Amino acid sequence: MSNYVLNAWYMAAWANEIPDDGILARTLLDRKWVLWRERDGRWAMIEDRCPHRFVPLSRGKFENGRIACGYHGLTFDGTGACVHNPFGGSLPPGAGVCSLPVVSAYGGLWFWPGDRAKADPAAIPDFAFIDASGPVERATYVMGVNYELIADNLLDLSHAEYLHVESFGTNGSLFSHGAQSVEQDQTGAIWNKWDMTGAPPPGWASPMMPEGSSVDQALHIRWHAPANLALFIEMRPSGKAAPLVPPMANPHILTPETTRSTHYFFTHAPGEEEAAQARRVFLEEDEPMVSAQAEAMGDADFWDLKPLILASDKAAILARRKIMQLKRAEGV
Amino acid sequence: MSNYVLNAWYMAAWANEIPDDGILARTLLDRKWVLWRERDGRWAMIEDRCPHRFVPLSRGKFENGRIACGYHGLTFDGTGACVHNPFGGSLPPGAGVCSLPVVSAYGGLWFWPGDRAKADPAAIPDFAFIDASGPVERATYVMGVNYELIADNLLDLSHAEYLHVESFGTNGSLFSHGAQSVEQDQTGAIWNKWDMTGAPPPGWASPMMPEGSSVDQALHIRWHAPANLALFIEMRPSGKAAPLVPPMANPHILTPETTRSTHYFFTHAPGEEEAAQARRVFLEEDEPMVSAQAEAMGDADFWDLKPLILASDKAAILARRKIMQLKRAEGV
Amino acid sequence: MSNYVLNAWYMAAWANEIPDDGILARTLLDRKWVLWRERDGRWAMIEDRCPHRFVPLSRGKFENGRIACGYHGLTFDGTGACVHNPFGGSLPPGAGVCSLPVVSAYGGLWFWPGDRAKADPAAIPDFAFIDASGPVERATYVMGVNYELIADNLLDLSHAEYLHVESFGTNGSLFSHGAQSVEQDQTGAIWNKWDMTGAPPPGWASPMMPEGSSVDQALHIRWHAPANLALFIEMRPSGKAAPLVPPMANPHILTPETTRSTHYFFTHAPGEEEAAQARRVFLEEDEPMVSAQAEAMGDADFWDLKPLILASDKAAILARRKIMQLKRAEGV
Repeated sequence: MSNYVLNAWYMAAWANEIPDDGILARTLLDRKWVLWRERDGRWAMIEDRCPHRFVPLSRGKFENGRIACGYHGLTFDGTGACVHNPFGGSLPPGAGVCSLPVVSAYGGLWFWPGDRAKADPAAIPDFAFIDASGPVERATYVMGVNYELIADNLLDLSHAEYLHVESFGTNGSLFSHGAQSVEQDQTGAIWNKWDMTGAPPPGWASPMMPEGSSVDQALHIRWHAPANLALFIEMRPSGKAAPLVPPMANPHILTPETTRSTHYFFTHAPGEEEAAQARRVFLEEDEPMVSAQAEAMGDADFWDLKPLILASDKAAILARRKIMQLKRAEGV
Repeated sequence: MSNYVLNAWYMAAWANEIPDDGILARTLLDRKWVLWRERDGRWAMIEDRCPHRFVPLSRGKFENGRIACGYHGLTFDGTGACVHNPFGGSLPPGAGVCSLPVVSAYGGLWFWPGDRAKADPAAIPDFAFIDASGPVERATYVMGVNYELIADNLLDLSHAEYLHVESFGTNGSLFSHGAQSVEQDQTGAIWNKWDMTGAPPPGWASPMMPEGSSVDQALHIRWHAPANLALFIEMRPSGKAAPLVPPMANPHILTPETTRSTHYFFTHAPGEEEAAQARRVFLEEDEPMVSAQAEAMGDADFWDLKPLILASDKAAILARRKIMQLKRAEGV
Repeated sequence: MSNYVLNAWYMAAWANEIPDDGILARTLLDRKWVLWRERDGRWAMIEDRCPHRFVPLSRGKFENGRIACGYHGLTFDGTGACVHNPFGGSLPPGAGVCSLPVVSAYGGLWFWPGDRAKADPAAIPDFAFIDASGPVERATYVMGVNYELIADNLLDLSHAEYLHVESFGTNGSLFSHGAQSVEQDQTGAIWNKWDMTGAPPPGWASPMMPEGSSVDQALHIRWHAPANLALFIEMRPSGKAAPLVPPMANPHILTPETTRSTHYFFTHAPGEEEAAQARRVFLEEDEPMVSAQAEAMGDADFWDLKPLILASDKAAILARRKIMQLKRAEGV
């Protein structure tokens, strides 16, 4: 079985990560790639590996939508075709490198590593909310664990009561006032919904409400295969329709770099403080824990380790199953 | 065959390494463990790995003899039983982690990784000498090699004439005036005894003795399986019964951390200078040499490398054979 | 198949790397060796691994052409024989370590790891040019890639137009005015010759020549198995016999340290600036590129990766074939 589902949209980068008139080199799904913007506005993504001596093309020279290998000068365009051989000899037919379809959507560049004929942009999950309620900063970093461990983390938000107790825990109301429901919608998404009803308001919200009143809170997460997630948070005074504060929605888009590392694409409100808060939650709270998990698991398969299954694991397990089904369907 | 003898007492830690009201997390025999002292004075040792997502429990919160996982809150007591599930659902019968019997003796905490029914504290080797002649400081560190290489080192003290020539070599008297004998005693211990008779006194001893007189010196080491060693040193004027200086006895207790690293438990006389001297001998003399040996051996089995056997190797070889016999007897 | 051709001369070191009355410890062809000069002027090369406990003998004490192990004192001479056992017992017949024939030539020490009976010094490739045109400094360093990747690099000098465009590229004249020929000579050497005819002179040469005149340039490289290379560069005004500047000849002698690292022996004109220039070309231009190649290839065999073959690769491919033939002939 392949390490990855191939007939699926993965995000390669935020579009603003690609320099004007330049390239971005990035490892995705265990292979090296180069991305750039063509003069006509379309995007190119070709394998970052010269077929002659296998060095990364990104070590070479990029000019006018062509990249010349820095070792012996073979030159490739955005389709991956070899368009120049300095020695003048004829090249074997088909000399070139792999290229992939890339589509821009929601500020991200999405690629399809599988069968090109099946690459339908309409299947890119809906992240229109990203820009819907004002400006955000798009950010990314690499987390040193397999993407499924991060998806597990996100699909069971109850961990916030332990791991994020200082940052965005809900003071235990998830356990005392929460109900969990797991759903699949018509887009194929799996949802894990925690709804806390009639809970005491968090400290910061108390001054905004009458004494003794309570809040209803929704903590919903949406997963599209392979690992494109979105988090939706709402809080309203109990029984009211209007939210207490504007609802929040955040992308948590995961793309495997390798089987042991993941590109994590997210957004945060503009500003240094918001960036630092996001880094703190991801880098100081989540990453050390999932890294410890990855280290403990070593090379073992998740199921072979016979994990103890809790009711709260339902969504994460459905997602893992879906990944397995998709891989099996691809017969790889 | 298992990497380790299992039906045996190993030392996990000096008792004073465990913080009051706290835990010690330590890798022993390739697995992670947490140790703490129960309120009734007994000791607890459970596997440091949550059965839910495999993260180390030691990353969680310890309180009142219970440890709550820092990821999703499953809570375990000193028997390894899961005593709290924040989600309230019932757990599968037997949900819990492995625990091991732990006994305190001679200031150390001894654990038995094998068949619990065979764990007889009377089989812990006698280290009563540790506190017999005044206060000592208990110390430990991790040496980056397999424990059998360190036992080999200790069981052939002739290396002192080369490796420790500056620190506690005997000026060649081991070869010029020494006789070696190897014995097994009724406790199952293997002894390697070097006795130097009528040798010139070492420089520091000369002023304490009549001109031209000589000394008899004993350099005895005792090994109990798997790798609990004790070193006994005596020096007396030749032919006299009374020692020239108080005899020395030192524990050298080795517990595998992994197949490539070892917890080394030892003692030294109190004080900074004595601690530095011990560190110098271990870290600057022994460790670089046994590390170079480990690097040279790589993944090869000791016997497959066809080592040249010298008469001085007898005790080390008996000890290696005993380990093999014990493993075979365990059928693992 | 062995990792290396064994019946061949490899260079172990420049003779001036061996300290007077001292030893040089070096890993060559995956094994550790010690080299020294005997009192009679001959050279000794024995395995750097005590047969007793496998530690490097080079950690011990060298004196009067004998080296005593630093662990337990077994002592070996330059033939590899064990000539002293401090315990006095008799040693098994043949106790000792491997030794290899070493011959000094052209300032280098050459060893023959294969069948000693076949070690004919006349087969050492001719590097007499090294000292022929004045003093040079002999230098060496370790490059972290397999030696065949470096030989590939040297056997296709067209890479100079890309990788060394700033240092010793020929301004594209290799492609515009060059012709390549590949030859084998009666010594078994493979030559890759680039001859540029009627090319515009490089910037530094223009002031030395009449306006509008052109130059002929030769860029010839010679390879002897396994990887002893020599580079010859000449430039003359077109049609003239006398060179414009003194011709250059440089050794590029490669000896595997391991399958992933190589001792690179070279020379440069005396002086700090020349040393810095050599380092820049090797360390800042060649090494990052071949390291990127090695990383991209991973553990895969070169041919299994189906490299695109260009006409310019002819010499490198002949050399790779020759290595394969030699290994096959050795039946290893």
